[in-house]
Amino acid sequence: MTPVAIVGASGYTGAELVRLLLGHPEVELAGLYARSTAGQPVASVLPSLAGVVDGILEPAAPEIIAGRARVAFLALPHGEGARLAADLLERGLKVIDLSADFRLRDAAAHTTWYGHDPVPGLRARAVYGLPERHRAEIAKADLVAVPGCYPTATVLAIAPLLPLVGAPLIVDAKSGVSGAGRTPGLSTHFPEIAEGIRPYKVAGTHRHTAEIEQELGGARVTFTPHLVPMTRGILSCVYAPARAERGFRDALVAAYAKEPFVTVLPDGQLPDTTHVRGSNRVHVNVVADARAGTVLAMAAIDNLVKGASGQAVQCMNLVLGLPETTGLGAVAAFP
Amino acid sequence: MTPVAIVGASGYTGAELVRLLLGHPEVELAGLYARSTAGQPVASVLPSLAGVVDGILEPAAPEIIAGRARVAFLALPHGEGARLAADLLERGLKVIDLSADFRLRDAAAHTTWYGHDPVPGLRARAVYGLPERHRAEIAKADLVAVPGCYPTATVLAIAPLLPLVGAPLIVDAKSGVSGAGRTPGLSTHFPEIAEGIRPYKVAGTHRHTAEIEQELGGARVTFTPHLVPMTRGILSCVYAPARAERGFRDALVAAYAKEPFVTVLPDGQLPDTTHVRGSNRVHVNVVADARAGTVLAMAAIDNLVKGASGQAVQCMNLVLGLPETTGLGAVAAFP
Amino acid sequence: MTPVAIVGASGYTGAELVRLLLGHPEVELAGLYARSTAGQPVASVLPSLAGVVDGILEPAAPEIIAGRARVAFLALPHGEGARLAADLLERGLKVIDLSADFRLRDAAAHTTWYGHDPVPGLRARAVYGLPERHRAEIAKADLVAVPGCYPTATVLAIAPLLPLVGAPLIVDAKSGVSGAGRTPGLSTHFPEIAEGIRPYKVAGTHRHTAEIEQELGGARVTFTPHLVPMTRGILSCVYAPARAERGFRDALVAAYAKEPFVTVLPDGQLPDTTHVRGSNRVHVNVVADARAGTVLAMAAIDNLVKGASGQAVQCMNLVLGLPETTGLGAVAAFP
Amino acid sequence: MTPVAIVGASGYTGAELVRLLLGHPEVELAGLYARSTAGQPVASVLPSLAGVVDGILEPAAPEIIAGRARVAFLALPHGEGARLAADLLERGLKVIDLSADFRLRDAAAHTTWYGHDPVPGLRARAVYGLPERHRAEIAKADLVAVPGCYPTATVLAIAPLLPLVGAPLIVDAKSGVSGAGRTPGLSTHFPEIAEGIRPYKVAGTHRHTAEIEQELGGARVTFTPHLVPMTRGILSCVYAPARAERGFRDALVAAYAKEPFVTVLPDGQLPDTTHVRGSNRVHVNVVADARAGTVLAMAAIDNLVKGASGQAVQCMNLVLGLPETTGLGAVAAFP
Repeated sequence: MTPVAIVGASGYTGAELVRLLLGHPEVELAGLYARSTAGQPVASVLPSLAGVVDGILEPAAPEIIAGRARVAFLALPHGEGARLAADLLERGLKVIDLSADFRLRDAAAHTTWYGHDPVPGLRARAVYGLPERHRAEIAKADLVAVPGCYPTATVLAIAPLLPLVGAPLIVDAKSGVSGAGRTPGLSTHFPEIAEGIRPYKVAGTHRHTAEIEQELGGARVTFTPHLVPMTRGILSCVYAPARAERGFRDALVAAYAKEPFVTVLPDGQLPDTTHVRGSNRVHVNVVADARAGTVLAMAAIDNLVKGASGQAVQCMNLVLGLPETTGLGAVAAFP
Repeated sequence: MTPVAIVGASGYTGAELVRLLLGHPEVELAGLYARSTAGQPVASVLPSLAGVVDGILEPAAPEIIAGRARVAFLALPHGEGARLAADLLERGLKVIDLSADFRLRDAAAHTTWYGHDPVPGLRARAVYGLPERHRAEIAKADLVAVPGCYPTATVLAIAPLLPLVGAPLIVDAKSGVSGAGRTPGLSTHFPEIAEGIRPYKVAGTHRHTAEIEQELGGARVTFTPHLVPMTRGILSCVYAPARAERGFRDALVAAYAKEPFVTVLPDGQLPDTTHVRGSNRVHVNVVADARAGTVLAMAAIDNLVKGASGQAVQCMNLVLGLPETTGLGAVAAFP
Repeated sequence: MTPVAIVGASGYTGAELVRLLLGHPEVELAGLYARSTAGQPVASVLPSLAGVVDGILEPAAPEIIAGRARVAFLALPHGEGARLAADLLERGLKVIDLSADFRLRDAAAHTTWYGHDPVPGLRARAVYGLPERHRAEIAKADLVAVPGCYPTATVLAIAPLLPLVGAPLIVDAKSGVSGAGRTPGLSTHFPEIAEGIRPYKVAGTHRHTAEIEQELGGARVTFTPHLVPMTRGILSCVYAPARAERGFRDALVAAYAKEPFVTVLPDGQLPDTTHVRGSNRVHVNVVADARAGTVLAMAAIDNLVKGASGQAVQCMNLVLGLPETTGLGAVAAFP
Repeated sequence: MTPVAIVGASGYTGAELVRLLLGHPEVELAGLYARSTAGQPVASVLPSLAGVVDGILEPAAPEIIAGRARVAFLALPHGEGARLAADLLERGLKVIDLSADFRLRDAAAHTTWYGHDPVPGLRARAVYGLPERHRAEIAKADLVAVPGCYPTATVLAIAPLLPLVGAPLIVDAKSGVSGAGRTPGLSTHFPEIAEGIRPYKVAGTHRHTAEIEQELGGARVTFTPHLVPMTRGILSCVYAPARAERGFRDALVAAYAKEPFVTVLPDGQLPDTTHVRGSNRVHVNVVADARAGTVLAMAAIDNLVKGASGQAVQCMNLVLGLPETTGLGAVAAFP
């Protein structure tokens, strides 16, 4: 049993890590760490753990974490965990970072989108944690940058089709509200959002645009995220001009034939976030609109699992040399 | 007070017509008519009318309707009201038809998309009931074909921008579940849809594609509708290649400066269906993504009001020579 | 046209007052006033008013309000508007107060439940604004204390039955989330509440307990409020020991025969908040459980209309000598 | 690995059994059986299993099931699986029945509530599958009648308190819509239920009343179920006259100290279905309202897990002599 620490356990991705790792047969929790909620009982911050996890949330002191754990998950806001990551790496831990701090390989791009490079030089050591595209590098990494939720769905939907389509890509993506995190605000206050849909950060202003473009090799992307009145789930619809007449679905099937978590749905069956909810699974499909010369690729994931914490565990499995699906076998809780 | 009849009063667009016309100062209800629910008390089929509307739903006999009403609203499924429309027109009534039977001007196109032309020749007499684009014709019409919900939002978002953009148009639209009507089915059963989002009838297979293309003068459109877990509302996002560098929002402002129901939101404020819910209002805006050379035009409406019954009343006002906003002044019930 | 002011226009009950009064044929808005949002454009705080109401939210200066309006609605948190109420009354305005400041007739009781009496002596002048029970006094009042949402539904459900039932009363009430107001917090953050139901402030700790007991003449009440994942609506279920064998529904029918907003549903048809949503209507019914010797009375209202702003307008109509239903005729926006 | 069959796999409790048993380390699925959907691919009926479970749903032929499985779960509507249960028992299988066919010990009571006794005599062999109260009998049973969802929550909330309270009991319970099953109907059509709450089958007319009264030793119960706009979850609030002044929470703590799935929440923390969703866990608590002399006991469960399929697996574990928590360790998927 490998001891693992979760830092930022009181947020949604942190809570989801706790849930997944409690059910993982090869690891044991070596403490739950938090910042603003440190000192509070776990079960009062996360009532879903009442009767299961005793004790309190502890402050994230690197020397303590390093004395207990071999792997640390960092589920902290951007810019707030990078120094801790560096410290834990120095102490010999493997670090799985769920923030955006190390996702962009180019420091200048990071600075453009996020304001400053929190630990200069460290990003060279990070591997982008999308196993379906960087499996081998992840297995050798000691610092994994877990992808954003939108990039995960979008890249998995369209990447295998790039040889068959042109530019630009239009990405119209829809997310559940948990993607906005656990800090309350007017825009996520129930009555403001429960009975409507809205776009936000449109026209290339959302930071995930950079991450999507990086992973797609520099494609030009118009990215439009939306908030949908549901808690979990991302549906990404990617439109592109067709450069072939057929073969789109075959390309997906070929790309994902051996992938344990990605399913190309039968012809005509479309992804629905309901059917992946609570699981690490990805449902993809593609259709061509011959009348308009357009291709539409779609992917549905659970933003907190394959879009964050499940993917983080998948990366940890690779880093530890475990079978990639360990602890991640659950199917969606439908309905 | 003009006497008006509502045929198909037990469905959602019918119920919304009752609501709007009960509050209209210049008309009086001359009977509520239905098919499968005929003979049942109004208040048991529509409990929201308990204590307000007595009596039963009556069968839709044209001679009875013609003896009571000067205007008839037909809120029936496609193909099921056309014969009645013809009969009522012959008896001298004005007919406001909410079905798709007379929306497509071209009979061959109608046959392609809907299977057959229910009353050959009659469509020549119909006017497409989008007042913002066909106001003068509607005022002279005796048969109005009220637009579909998706076309209303889509056309109002993009039509004024056509001179500034290229092809193809990508329309990614999201609808509340009431758009699917009141007949229960597995796909709209609460647990199947309440916590997820899904696309349906993609790649040009949804019938509204034809209607959108007709109103946009033949533009090629890739249309993707989605069901969102909310009852009311449509958000239409229309993407197009930019053929200008600026002037997009100005074009919307110019087009809608005098329109009573269409508001171009301030720069940077994006449409949200929450803010038009229950009203006949339309919120539009546009942004340009200079990086990708793309324009995104957006419109939010309530699918049951501006997308159906409110627009029908707006058309009736024009037909009767009343001020266009009569009975339609309500703002959204927010939150 | 009577000029009326709305103070606290940026909250949910304030916004609902704006909506209702914009549609009222006998009044005109004489300014929208706010505290923390003063100075901001109306349409940015309440986007549902974009294109309809221009201008900014103004600070609530009594001399300005008094110079413009004859009636002032105060939609402010408890304790924050009482001084303003006193000031406006002195300047000759009628005040319709939606807070709890003047609902309890007994100053000591108010102090027990709310901490202090904001303007000692003023409560003697206030009338409890439940027209179905205090119509005549309201018509003569210049200070109306609009009832709480839970008391409105609860009192209307059970008051006519008190002669037929014993003690104690069990009130199990369920509310939409808008009842919690517009200030964001963790408990009303969408992901925390969208897919669950929870009780809160149980066992007589919710302040509305005092108000319910006052209006029911001192009955002992166990009151349990719940938050339900919906925006609007209150369903109140009131259980009591039966002291008669029949006559329960007849007692409701007799009590409400002439009430314009209260409908006793047909025997066997149960209240559903869906059917009153957006309207000032009340649906009530009662059933007896002979096996257990228990009576269950139920009422459904929209918490923001009959439970707050609609009832406030109803009271204003009485105060101004207008027909009580003026501007309040709308039926529920179903679905 | 014990081979187990699931009959009725296409409904919600059947689907949940598949999910739970796929993650169970000591059993293997020996076929998924259905009635109306027999012959269809599993992944088209349950898209959440796409890429995970191949093959088709098979007709429920007892000889086939008996040849493959040692345990059969029957997740069929009331009255439709009893004959199959008898047949499978005769062939030596253990049967875990999720219907109401064998829950009531008294045949006359069953006939009163359900119309007829489907296999006379068989109910004598059945054990009521609530492990917290009938653990020893379940371990020796070959026919287990898994309790209803409402009775599970209600009995667990109040049973330990019966010595401390009087009669009658008022049970005000709230359920997610999945409790109504997967067959579509108007009352569960999304727009009819998504934004409101309603009671149904009130005043002792819901069949679960009999089951609750049986398990509470004949207490008189007024039972009111409600449908809440959420997919999963039951919250049961049980009111009773207090016959003691204190000791209520202690009685719960004593009753559940060693129970693996039941947690008495800390004093003042109230059950919320959000915090048990997707898990087999039960959150209970109790408060006394000294002013009114009333006790309120509350329990929250997931209706599809502890209220159906999870409890069925818990019973199977007992029947097979496995540790009771095997395969059921997951905590709630929060949020």
